[in-house]
Amino acid sequence: MQCELCSTTLPNKIWENSHFYVLNASTTTYPVFLRLVCKTHIKEMTDLPLPVFTHMCRLMRTIEKTVIEYTHCEKVNWAQFGCVVPHLHWHCIARWQDDVNFPATPWNDPVRTISPRITQTRLSMNDILLPHLSLLLTQVPRP
Amino acid sequence: MQCELCSTTLPNKIWENSHFYVLNASTTTYPVFLRLVCKTHIKEMTDLPLPVFTHMCRLMRTIEKTVIEYTHCEKVNWAQFGCVVPHLHWHCIARWQDDVNFPATPWNDPVRTISPRITQTRLSMNDILLPHLSLLLTQVPRP
Repeated sequence: MQCELCSTTLPNKIWENSHFYVLNASTTTYPVFLRLVCKTHIKEMTDLPLPVFTHMCRLMRTIEKTVIEYTHCEKVNWAQFGCVVPHLHWHCIARWQDDVNFPATPWNDPVRTISPRITQTRLSMNDILLPHLSLLLTQVPRP
Repeated sequence: MQCELCSTTLPNKIWENSHFYVLNASTTTYPVFLRLVCKTHIKEMTDLPLPVFTHMCRLMRTIEKTVIEYTHCEKVNWAQFGCVVPHLHWHCIARWQDDVNFPATPWNDPVRTISPRITQTRLSMNDILLPHLSLLLTQVPRP
């Protein structure tokens, strides 16, 4: 079976270089949600050569800084599991104190609903965040 | 209220330097489980100066490599939430295909039990893993 993250035609790809790409994974539940994906089909981040690993970390840093700057969220969550899709990828999720299950993790059950107005306001942050992030990611030094 | 990760007397601390410490967070559910904690009470990894951020990433790399080498686990999971305890810390969890909820995340509900014999075998991996990891972490270049 083809790995879904190896696909070259993924929708919502907002940026890429020769090593990584970033998906806009935002939903009404988590309205600012990004996914940083390695282009090579490897399982663990330590499968990366050190320079590419260092590059990945710099990309994560740029993503987090930009998400905080444009959303003023309460916390940025990062997770890398890869047990379902064993292809290196990071989830980056902006969290707010009034979101569906703060302070639990995005993998816990929801305990409240978010008003459509607030959801729409947060979703629309992507309109400015994503183009700016794309520019900044291109400026991260490459290995 | 005192932040629990700011405490200087945490049990199960297996390593520390001036910037970070590592806890053995292993349980019978996840028998190889480490926690990398920043010594400064900051919330986001981008609150770290770049050299300390780079140091953190090198520590993560060393932890992951060593966990894989000593456990031959199926996958290493990483997560950094900090919504409950807003003090920068990473969870690093070795996963096996027969663990309580593989391939779901450690924050999902368990769907099976692990035999006490397998749990004990995996817990005992820490006896060799942790002292060796402690030595290797000390060798990671510091900022």
